[in-house]
Amino acid sequence: MGNRPASTAHLAMLLEVAGTPKPGNVDRHRDLSDLGFEHFLAGAVGARPGLVAAATGDRVGAAFETAIAGMAAATDRNTHFGTLLLLVPLVAATDDGTIAPAATERVVEDTTIADAADFYRAFDHVEVAVGDPPADAPDLDVRRGSDAVSAVESRGLTLLDVMERSTPGDGVAREWTTGFERTFETAERIRSGDGSILDRAADAFLALLARDPDTLVQTRHGEAVAREVTDRAASLEDGSREAIEAFAADLVDRGINPGTTADVTAAGLYVALTRGASL
Amino acid sequence: MGNRPASTAHLAMLLEVAGTPKPGNVDRHRDLSDLGFEHFLAGAVGARPGLVAAATGDRVGAAFETAIAGMAAATDRNTHFGTLLLLVPLVAATDDGTIAPAATERVVEDTTIADAADFYRAFDHVEVAVGDPPADAPDLDVRRGSDAVSAVESRGLTLLDVMERSTPGDGVAREWTTGFERTFETAERIRSGDGSILDRAADAFLALLARDPDTLVQTRHGEAVAREVTDRAASLEDGSREAIEAFAADLVDRGINPGTTADVTAAGLYVALTRGASL
Repeated sequence: MGNRPASTAHLAMLLEVAGTPKPGNVDRHRDLSDLGFEHFLAGAVGARPGLVAAATGDRVGAAFETAIAGMAAATDRNTHFGTLLLLVPLVAATDDGTIAPAATERVVEDTTIADAADFYRAFDHVEVAVGDPPADAPDLDVRRGSDAVSAVESRGLTLLDVMERSTPGDGVAREWTTGFERTFETAERIRSGDGSILDRAADAFLALLARDPDTLVQTRHGEAVAREVTDRAASLEDGSREAIEAFAADLVDRGINPGTTADVTAAGLYVALTRGASL
Repeated sequence: MGNRPASTAHLAMLLEVAGTPKPGNVDRHRDLSDLGFEHFLAGAVGARPGLVAAATGDRVGAAFETAIAGMAAATDRNTHFGTLLLLVPLVAATDDGTIAPAATERVVEDTTIADAADFYRAFDHVEVAVGDPPADAPDLDVRRGSDAVSAVESRGLTLLDVMERSTPGDGVAREWTTGFERTFETAERIRSGDGSILDRAADAFLALLARDPDTLVQTRHGEAVAREVTDRAASLEDGSREAIEAFAADLVDRGINPGTTADVTAAGLYVALTRGASL
């Protein structure tokens, strides 16, 4: 059934936002100032047609733009941009209930200039926090949205090319160029962990944050803050629940949102569920 | 688009379980002993094909059985039986983005013996807490599931007939036989309330519980307990958040779960969202 991977991806999005504590992110116990739990539920439902498109053979870029358009229409906010940029190729690479790095790499390698154009068009639907474009290519600024499509086309860039240009400063793009390495590692951590899947998702989030600085935090707050957050996460990996909750409260108070780490957590949940992880 | 009502119903299920405090129920802040938040998320995703079937013209009974089969396959639990028994006819009655009591009454009046048979078959998929059958019709015990279908057929009962036999002891059946009166009232309360939709859903739940004893509590714990719960809810309608949270903790401790009230809340959310309620 073509919709099975779409349903699994959809559930991964819901479980990701419900897992708690996920320091600095909306979770079962915390909202951000203008971004609530309800927006993540609605964003996940709105994005679903794009996931179905990915599961039923639509081009990766087109499916992604469909997902973002639906998310934005449902919430008027960006809840899942990075998450969907990971889930769409993973869903497209899922075959007969199986997902593996090699198939995922094939999907991203097969992306075309048309997929890159779709990706740029997705920025027309919603405001996304991104870094500045490379100095040699201001015409490729993703914030230009569809206005940048002609530049993408004249340079002949595929969507994978666009992702390569964003690595390593963007942790989502890095997954595209590394065979979704952290995604698959996270999936195994979720499958082998203890507790409910919500607890295992929260543990996986902290483990990811402890290993690599969050690139959304880097973009918004600079490398020093991102490093501080990662060091504190590392110090808490075997810490008490209370200490992790205090860290979570502190990040929310300071407006520090490791959103890329949440994106990889959702992608890891998708792979884990596809591979039979229990609730 | 046929899937629009299905998506709205799906979102209503997610918002219902997230609203807090909903005393005695799984909500954003509470799990029950063998029934967690993650099961409600998975149950809502699993039920979706049945909602799509209802939105695209499948028979009400068949769509309901599809929804229950999907829910049970995803969770091995009963998370949404009563909720889906309300949402399926509401989705079927939604036409061009409009839902009204008259159309809903037509849908339930048009149900057939085949729909009743499907309803009984749905009990094969999952264990549901129900009262004893009428003394004059032990062969119609829903707990017999598909084994009761021949009795349903030989008596010539439609699904609406079955619901009439369950009223007034079952608050879900009562909606079927009263033009979904409490559902539409709840929708207007949610549309006109204050706060986020999660807060408005929780307020609507308490208002419903304060007005009528929950029939699931009646079935499991008797009328006196159901009455006590309703009296306490009524005393708290203008109470402090702390007092309502204490009530919620007490009901969870005592294993008292006003699940029918949650079902009507979800149905009210569906109507409210269809009528343009904001998040």
